[in-house]
Amino acid sequence: MPIIPPALSDLIDAFGLLPGVGPRTAERYAYYMLKHDGDTPEKLASALQKLHAGVGQCSKTFALVPAGQDISDLYSDPSRDKTIVAVVAEPFDVVALEKTAQFHGTYHVLGGLVSPIDGISPDQLHIAELIKRIDSDKVKEIILATNASVEGESTALYIRQELGARKVKVSRLARGLSVGVDLEYADQLTLARALEGRTYL
Amino acid sequence: MPIIPPALSDLIDAFGLLPGVGPRTAERYAYYMLKHDGDTPEKLASALQKLHAGVGQCSKTFALVPAGQDISDLYSDPSRDKTIVAVVAEPFDVVALEKTAQFHGTYHVLGGLVSPIDGISPDQLHIAELIKRIDSDKVKEIILATNASVEGESTALYIRQELGARKVKVSRLARGLSVGVDLEYADQLTLARALEGRTYL
Repeated sequence: MPIIPPALSDLIDAFGLLPGVGPRTAERYAYYMLKHDGDTPEKLASALQKLHAGVGQCSKTFALVPAGQDISDLYSDPSRDKTIVAVVAEPFDVVALEKTAQFHGTYHVLGGLVSPIDGISPDQLHIAELIKRIDSDKVKEIILATNASVEGESTALYIRQELGARKVKVSRLARGLSVGVDLEYADQLTLARALEGRTYL
Repeated sequence: MPIIPPALSDLIDAFGLLPGVGPRTAERYAYYMLKHDGDTPEKLASALQKLHAGVGQCSKTFALVPAGQDISDLYSDPSRDKTIVAVVAEPFDVVALEKTAQFHGTYHVLGGLVSPIDGISPDQLHIAELIKRIDSDKVKEIILATNASVEGESTALYIRQELGARKVKVSRLARGLSVGVDLEYADQLTLARALEGRTYL
């Protein structure tokens, strides 16, 4: 005898698909939706249904754009410097970098990182398109803004090699202590990187 | 210039309505849905849309039932003892108690707790229906299984008073240490309750 009506357990299962959501959290979300009138579930349902049709990919930078738009505003904006390109793994990394309001170049989204374990090889990423952009836009510097992980590092190294003899500055984001982190709580590797990359006053 | 396409930011906003979900988590959920094909968002969307139409309330116990069913299986099941009633605040409390597999009586869902701050008065709860059940089912014991909060305690006291001179045993769930909790980490009030309710060996 099921204690939970099927319509509710279906919703719990569906919420359980979300990353980091266990059975208890999924129950809490589902029950929240049950306690609220039809508007709240309907709002989420309609946003979900419109998602894929409403989001496109910039044909140049592979950043997210509203459906129907070909080129991202972050590329077409004339005030942005097309000769500096920040190379990121995922579209949301663009959002994170934009929030700093410190970068005025353009972006290039790889669509992932090289990862033999997950079966992702370099030719599945938008690396060829990056090389093409470097040539056509006369790019002077690329910032390899990939994660500080094994995949992030190896993707950066791969791109460095692919650039060949092109005269383009290549940089990586600095590795070091996060702002506000106590020295004693920093992990060994981070601390080693912070030592390596120390700046002189 | 919005960096996030409207279809995506609408979904982030909708996920942000869920309890305990901040902007970062909502972004993570929305981006997960974007990375997965149409099936995953559609599954959640359709479960949300079917929720309210698919879930009803037992007319006797106010527990959740599949739409169209009048009486909860937890009440109509002849093996359950109708003379013992566990009184809970919310329908999910029934699920929590059922999971213990230790209770073989029936339930009564109040639909909330008395809370003057939130404007919930006793007449908005299913207390009159509980009193009626006590008389019609010849209930011998009611277990006031409300939360160990101010609202939970005062609701329990209110129901105790409403019972008047009826010959029915009234109990509360035991207060004390959670299983696995270290004495030194237990809060003062819990420890005081655990002392009060100590059992002799």
